[in-house]
Amino acid sequence: MSGTVLLNGQPADPALALSRGLHYGDGIFRTLLKYNSQLIDFKLQYIKLTEDAAALGLEAPDLGMLQREAEGVGAAVGNGVIKILLLRSGAGRGYTPRTSGCDRLLLSYPLPRYPLPHWQEGIEACRCELRLARQPALAGIKHLNRLEQVLAARNWPEGAVEGILCDERGAPVCGTRSNLFWIRDGVLHTPALESCGVAGMMRGKVLACAAALGIATRVETRPWSVLMDAAEAFVTNSLIGIWPLRRLGQRDWGEPGPLTHKLRTALQHPCIACDPDQV
Amino acid sequence: MSGTVLLNGQPADPALALSRGLHYGDGIFRTLLKYNSQLIDFKLQYIKLTEDAAALGLEAPDLGMLQREAEGVGAAVGNGVIKILLLRSGAGRGYTPRTSGCDRLLLSYPLPRYPLPHWQEGIEACRCELRLARQPALAGIKHLNRLEQVLAARNWPEGAVEGILCDERGAPVCGTRSNLFWIRDGVLHTPALESCGVAGMMRGKVLACAAALGIATRVETRPWSVLMDAAEAFVTNSLIGIWPLRRLGQRDWGEPGPLTHKLRTALQHPCIACDPDQV
Repeated sequence: MSGTVLLNGQPADPALALSRGLHYGDGIFRTLLKYNSQLIDFKLQYIKLTEDAAALGLEAPDLGMLQREAEGVGAAVGNGVIKILLLRSGAGRGYTPRTSGCDRLLLSYPLPRYPLPHWQEGIEACRCELRLARQPALAGIKHLNRLEQVLAARNWPEGAVEGILCDERGAPVCGTRSNLFWIRDGVLHTPALESCGVAGMMRGKVLACAAALGIATRVETRPWSVLMDAAEAFVTNSLIGIWPLRRLGQRDWGEPGPLTHKLRTALQHPCIACDPDQV
Repeated sequence: MSGTVLLNGQPADPALALSRGLHYGDGIFRTLLKYNSQLIDFKLQYIKLTEDAAALGLEAPDLGMLQREAEGVGAAVGNGVIKILLLRSGAGRGYTPRTSGCDRLLLSYPLPRYPLPHWQEGIEACRCELRLARQPALAGIKHLNRLEQVLAARNWPEGAVEGILCDERGAPVCGTRSNLFWIRDGVLHTPALESCGVAGMMRGKVLACAAALGIATRVETRPWSVLMDAAEAFVTNSLIGIWPLRRLGQRDWGEPGPLTHKLRTALQHPCIACDPDQV
């Protein structure tokens, strides 16, 4: 039982054991859908990855190389999920970042087994007790410091499939693993992410899709009561596309509304619940 | 180039690659000094580890086992630094924590090469631009979400050895890798850590030491100006013990003051700059 790295009492590979990604969460990630042999929206994901990398002073790897590695790791699954992490290089102690270089960690997972009604009828969500801290320096970035999401994802009421996170003042920001939208007076709203929250790739895609359809959009933080008064509401991420909100606390929206339908149709995101491998 | 885990294009050990510690920072850590064959303050560190574990819903490992593993990993260094990480078990995707079980990761590092004047004459520090976010659910815990510290440790002015972090309102909280104390009217002050900051083992030890010496103590968040008006100031952590603050921005304290001396003498923490292996 000696050596400079022990994992559960056994000598361990130092590569990741020394990583700043593990010790500090000094890195970023993206989650992609692989479906019908395609890495869905890979270039949009790469653009977000590059933006997030720049925000932390990291240099994103070459697009072509990253895509080849994503295809390589994806070969292990048919349809599935690919996760890409960029971890700042450097193995020493000390918070000061010494380089903009990164290690690339890619993983593949099987498709999650979400039921078809999540798409067709919508989901039930809850309002998380934990409030997101205000940190403009990290807001919007899909970084590896995700303890707020971990704590917020505990103790949901029975039936809740997603938790809606609020800022310090109680205004809705996003879901624990999704972005949040609502529709009021024909306008598509989503919270601003200047103080907290994560800007998913699908959030940008839905906003662009709405604009292309001639639907007015507004990116603005609004009180909880505004969400409660909305005509329709839904959450998005790169795996699910759009899940309508059927219920949130006491608010019952019932069947998905017309603009949610319209956006979902235009988005043409695969419904992974229909994946024949999973049925 | 296939497999479910690729690190920089090569198949990698999945154990840490799948860890919630890496993906979410879902874990905690302690940093210990090994000196003259002793794990300094191991039991005090273990108590803090257990408290932090409980705060995240983690079960700390048995004291005896952890101590044996720390001694095992420490065998690789003479005098040095031992870091203990507890990473929540479970390798799947999804934020919801499914277990209170942990993986134990222990690492050893050589002693840092700090110069002797840091102890004797004190250090120069700067005020970090980044403000610590207010998050009561995580305040005080030595967890693995340390991006604020990473960002705060960039671009210090020449000569600065530590950065002092403030809360949203500009009140001093702690150093990037230390706790902060000051002395005013014979009273030892340290900021409360109810909204942000990390409660180091040495912080508690210094407070206890002061009480034993009959020095009044106050744990309270105070404005920046109160720190600037202090008669003496110093920072602490488990490696250095106490480093007096000689200068912070425009404030020049000069030589370490009498209460700083008195506390340091009573603390009897080894001065690792005097380590013969390092000279």
